[in-house]
Amino acid sequence: MSLLVVGSVALDTVYTPKGSLIEGLGGSATYFSVAASVFTPVKLVGVVGSDFPSEHIDKLSRRGIDVEGLYAVEGKTFRWSGRYGEDFGDPETLDTQLNVFADFSPKLPEKYRNTPFLFLGNIHPQLQLQVLDQMKSPKFVAVDTMNFWIERERELLLEVFKQIDMAVINELEVRLLTGIRSPLAGAKKVQEMGPKILVVKRGAYGSMTLIGDEIFLFPAFPTDDVTDPTGAGDSFAGGMIGYIAGQNDISNDTIKNAVANGTVVGSFCVEGFSIRKLEKITHSDVAERLEKLRGMMKF
Amino acid sequence: MSLLVVGSVALDTVYTPKGSLIEGLGGSATYFSVAASVFTPVKLVGVVGSDFPSEHIDKLSRRGIDVEGLYAVEGKTFRWSGRYGEDFGDPETLDTQLNVFADFSPKLPEKYRNTPFLFLGNIHPQLQLQVLDQMKSPKFVAVDTMNFWIERERELLLEVFKQIDMAVINELEVRLLTGIRSPLAGAKKVQEMGPKILVVKRGAYGSMTLIGDEIFLFPAFPTDDVTDPTGAGDSFAGGMIGYIAGQNDISNDTIKNAVANGTVVGSFCVEGFSIRKLEKITHSDVAERLEKLRGMMKF
Repeated sequence: MSLLVVGSVALDTVYTPKGSLIEGLGGSATYFSVAASVFTPVKLVGVVGSDFPSEHIDKLSRRGIDVEGLYAVEGKTFRWSGRYGEDFGDPETLDTQLNVFADFSPKLPEKYRNTPFLFLGNIHPQLQLQVLDQMKSPKFVAVDTMNFWIERERELLLEVFKQIDMAVINELEVRLLTGIRSPLAGAKKVQEMGPKILVVKRGAYGSMTLIGDEIFLFPAFPTDDVTDPTGAGDSFAGGMIGYIAGQNDISNDTIKNAVANGTVVGSFCVEGFSIRKLEKITHSDVAERLEKLRGMMKF
Repeated sequence: MSLLVVGSVALDTVYTPKGSLIEGLGGSATYFSVAASVFTPVKLVGVVGSDFPSEHIDKLSRRGIDVEGLYAVEGKTFRWSGRYGEDFGDPETLDTQLNVFADFSPKLPEKYRNTPFLFLGNIHPQLQLQVLDQMKSPKFVAVDTMNFWIERERELLLEVFKQIDMAVINELEVRLLTGIRSPLAGAKKVQEMGPKILVVKRGAYGSMTLIGDEIFLFPAFPTDDVTDPTGAGDSFAGGMIGYIAGQNDISNDTIKNAVANGTVVGSFCVEGFSIRKLEKITHSDVAERLEKLRGMMKF
């Protein structure tokens, strides 16, 4: 079934120990869409400026992503620039220019409004609510957010959390949301805020997912072939929720397989700058690496 | 088969958000022994002062640990004191008094020298070499170390590494040893230094184990019932190597099951101060929790 994502599309300038990328295709909705497109048809809602290269639009279209909701408006595209250290940990942000993204106000094309699966990317909770208002009772809604919104727009964010099925956040965000230091106790508290399914991202260590009363632990795919970690979390979410939409099923078993598939999709993302590696992967690339990873967990 | 451990026995004063412990039984060899005793007979080599409470010796003996090699000498026992913050992360060390441990020079009772399994706890590499010299061709040798020895006694430590089968260290120690930031690439480099088996500890995220060319990923048991993390790593190592000795087998399958069992034993350790929880656990407690953890990994 089809999956709608709302979020940022950007031009990224990235420096890593493996090289650099100047104004490449980036943004959370970009990574999410390309990752999800491995498993299901995707509709993308976002905004770019009049300077946005048409070749980037072509790349998305080639992955079968519906870009009717990706509006090009007068002005400059959102730009982000960052530098990764030797350990490929959290990058140092060198520059952020919101540009046209600062006035982003998502309007869903009429034909998008009954999409059954929805992912609300990391945007202002007010905009997330605005998207929810335009949807006609989606079957499944997942959300991402960040420390900035948790700290500054807490009430609106809690309003969003009441209306969703799944949240995909990291351990720090769990702690900020709940004030609880124990990752497990904090995660349970987040569930009480709304989402029955909570995926807690642990970066290079994988994830812990709570599905109702069940806990699902999944490791990351170990690699020493990291080129650019940008978009890893978004690709993980995209692979995961794309898988759920592709199966058109939200049983616990499907959620667990979705985490596993998302993990593997995310592992491909970091092996190239921008979406260079991600845009090439197929169903069978994912299946093959997942078998490898499964082998590393067997005892 | 029987397992010999050489390391520290201490009196610990610990403050955690759950309470405090004043001069309780501690030390890496203590935690290791008690954990290993779940699976196999253990011989402990260490030193304590004349102030060491005999009740602590009794506790070890009750777990079937052979304490003939735990020498009591004139003077005060090694003391350590630390405080854990709200997140139970790395503790702040408040005080360290090596006391009689400063002059520790391990002498193995004659009957210990042909013990088939050996664990060299985190002591001066010179002392680790001294123990190796006294052993009569052990079947399997594992080692722990720390940043202090890596930085100050590198040459001696590399001498130790050449003579062992397994090292149990954390990601920071891998990086310090190799200068390589990628955990996987660094781990492979450590294998080249000697140990065919390398267990990389990831704290609350579990472990990554390299066994020759194989990679084995295992998560930690998630809990919100942490009381005192002291000894968690030593209990993990003890449970793991105790399991290997108990099976008297060093096949890849046994190593993987050992990691799994060690993980579970370590998870019990943190649920009580000192060895209070650890000394009570049985084979079936471990098996039961391991089944739970296995369930959390199934997809």
